[in-house]
Amino acid sequence: MTDGSKVIRARAFRWPAVPRTEYKAESQTHRGVSRQTLMGDGAGEEALAFITRYFEVEPGGYTTLECHGHPHAVVVLQGRGQVVLNGAAHEVGLHDCVYVAPGTIHQFRAAPDGPLGFLCMVDRVRDRATPMPPAPPPGGVRS
Amino acid sequence: MTDGSKVIRARAFRWPAVPRTEYKAESQTHRGVSRQTLMGDGAGEEALAFITRYFEVEPGGYTTLECHGHPHAVVVLQGRGQVVLNGAAHEVGLHDCVYVAPGTIHQFRAAPDGPLGFLCMVDRVRDRATPMPPAPPPGGVRS
Repeated sequence: MTDGSKVIRARAFRWPAVPRTEYKAESQTHRGVSRQTLMGDGAGEEALAFITRYFEVEPGGYTTLECHGHPHAVVVLQGRGQVVLNGAAHEVGLHDCVYVAPGTIHQFRAAPDGPLGFLCMVDRVRDRATPMPPAPPPGGVRS
Repeated sequence: MTDGSKVIRARAFRWPAVPRTEYKAESQTHRGVSRQTLMGDGAGEEALAFITRYFEVEPGGYTTLECHGHPHAVVVLQGRGQVVLNGAAHEVGLHDCVYVAPGTIHQFRAAPDGPLGFLCMVDRVRDRATPMPPAPPPGGVRS
């Protein structure tokens, strides 16, 4: 296609021109999450101030509980589940949007009966996420 | 919801918390287009470097043929139609993505049998669009 513009074809939540990668493969703080970076990271797409990614969480899976200084703009494309925002869980479903403000401790969880798929847009220039520790056991104290 | 994060509920391609507006009501260069600004324009959302909008084009409708210096990142959410990129028409359908590079003359057209709905993300700081004149009649000359 001329001049850098392009159409990226979709089929059943896969975009064949886009690699699908394990999300943070080195970590054990998530389960069953894949990522496809749809726009913003390709050659010639540097003009965008943001990156458009598609995340898919397997049934019963979850993303890392984490916190960072940059915000997220999320649009659910399939399935249902929960988003946890500073300790409160909220049900999310098709085309619900989630604005995750800077500094919010957050996690996305798929329902047990199907995958949860969502677009997640982020600023191109952003800080790294800090994983949050799991909740302490009942009666536990901070050392 | 605490700390500025929020869930914006969807129902059948409407987000009740979000106003739906006529797209460029003052212009006669488009037909049957509405816009809902989902994220990036609300109170407390200034941290996002970009705006997430949902456009819906009625069956047979079309957006303005236009050009600008900022890029678009588009994801189709419903229906099918065409995107015109520098004079070439490309079919688009569910979840296809379109990267519209800076300076590309572009237009979205819905198929005659149903609406075309798509997310269109843009940088928060961007230039205004320039509408393109309709094609001159055969044999016409520029004055």
